[in-house]
Amino acid sequence: MPSEPEARPRLVLATANPHKLIELTRILAAERLDVDLVGLGEFPGAPDVAETGATFVANALLKARAVAAFTGLPAVADDSGLCCDAMNGMPGVLSARWSGRHGDDAENLRLVLAQLSEVPEDRLRAHFYCVAALVRPSGEETLSAGTLRGRLIREPRGTNGFGYDPIFVPDGERRTTAEMTADDKDAISHRGRAFRGLAETIATLPRPVR
Amino acid sequence: MPSEPEARPRLVLATANPHKLIELTRILAAERLDVDLVGLGEFPGAPDVAETGATFVANALLKARAVAAFTGLPAVADDSGLCCDAMNGMPGVLSARWSGRHGDDAENLRLVLAQLSEVPEDRLRAHFYCVAALVRPSGEETLSAGTLRGRLIREPRGTNGFGYDPIFVPDGERRTTAEMTADDKDAISHRGRAFRGLAETIATLPRPVR
Repeated sequence: MPSEPEARPRLVLATANPHKLIELTRILAAERLDVDLVGLGEFPGAPDVAETGATFVANALLKARAVAAFTGLPAVADDSGLCCDAMNGMPGVLSARWSGRHGDDAENLRLVLAQLSEVPEDRLRAHFYCVAALVRPSGEETLSAGTLRGRLIREPRGTNGFGYDPIFVPDGERRTTAEMTADDKDAISHRGRAFRGLAETIATLPRPVR
Repeated sequence: MPSEPEARPRLVLATANPHKLIELTRILAAERLDVDLVGLGEFPGAPDVAETGATFVANALLKARAVAAFTGLPAVADDSGLCCDAMNGMPGVLSARWSGRHGDDAENLRLVLAQLSEVPEDRLRAHFYCVAALVRPSGEETLSAGTLRGRLIREPRGTNGFGYDPIFVPDGERRTTAEMTADDKDAISHRGRAFRGLAETIATLPRPVR
């Protein structure tokens, strides 16, 4: 009789944002880690954590801790944002609710462009920043950060990605991140870099006892 | 025959914002300086300078320089703003056009409150900041800065003042700056402090030759 295959660790992707869920799944799947990725949707009643932290690190930890505690499984979460030089790094941790309406990508993007309408071209430098947090039920925590530097353009272009992608052109690129293929974007993106930084730790997650 | 009284220097208040003009006139008049304050409205065709600088200092100098050059008279200008701790000091130099609509006080204020709606009470610290610049036609430039520290409240109160006054409570006060009398506000305000810092220099302006 063949021996039963060993159980794979399960890892919860602690985000309610469907765009992020897709990106995280894609990025981690590409690492061919020996884990089962589970969306938050599989845990009815999982806490909807308000991102009230002052920093990306605080918010990523808030979310991953809450979900690890609720599910009893290791959880990864990220907090990401667009940081504009001409706005002292804002929208930053407020990126998702910049216009005052959480998750309204079109309105958030429109507001940033309006705010920067009189800012000269040479001060439209910006970067995307992502902090990824892995929290185990045991309490062990691992953090990883990724940055993608570039500049803003005044006319949105492209329909891939989400958030501020249509107005962001990475250094060395002519395309916005909304014009790039998923693979091209993941290879350089803040979120790709941050999550790949967790791969080694994810690979050491203990296998569940059957 | 009595000798003709000596001519007083004229000083142009380089602002097109009627609220600011009133405040500046009031603050400088209280210093009983021996100058004639002149509004920008007396100089048809005076340049409407875009505030494209990256800093309060740059913007104040931009405006004062342009008006001194245009009028041939000494000019004072200020650049002021609300700096919120939870937004890395923004709206800052973008305070007047935060919502994307320049000078729309109600909309700017509403946006700040919406952006900070999930920020905990203890991180609603903010300050008003003002840089005042005096530029003489000779090219001499004097700068002065003033700060008013306090905190934001979520429900606007008061109808005096302008801009973000209805949501700002100075340290040591229970009133918003929009609930204070003009005298009380001027005594502690960022603009009062900045402009009083110029008084000594204004007092040395050369009297015009008749």
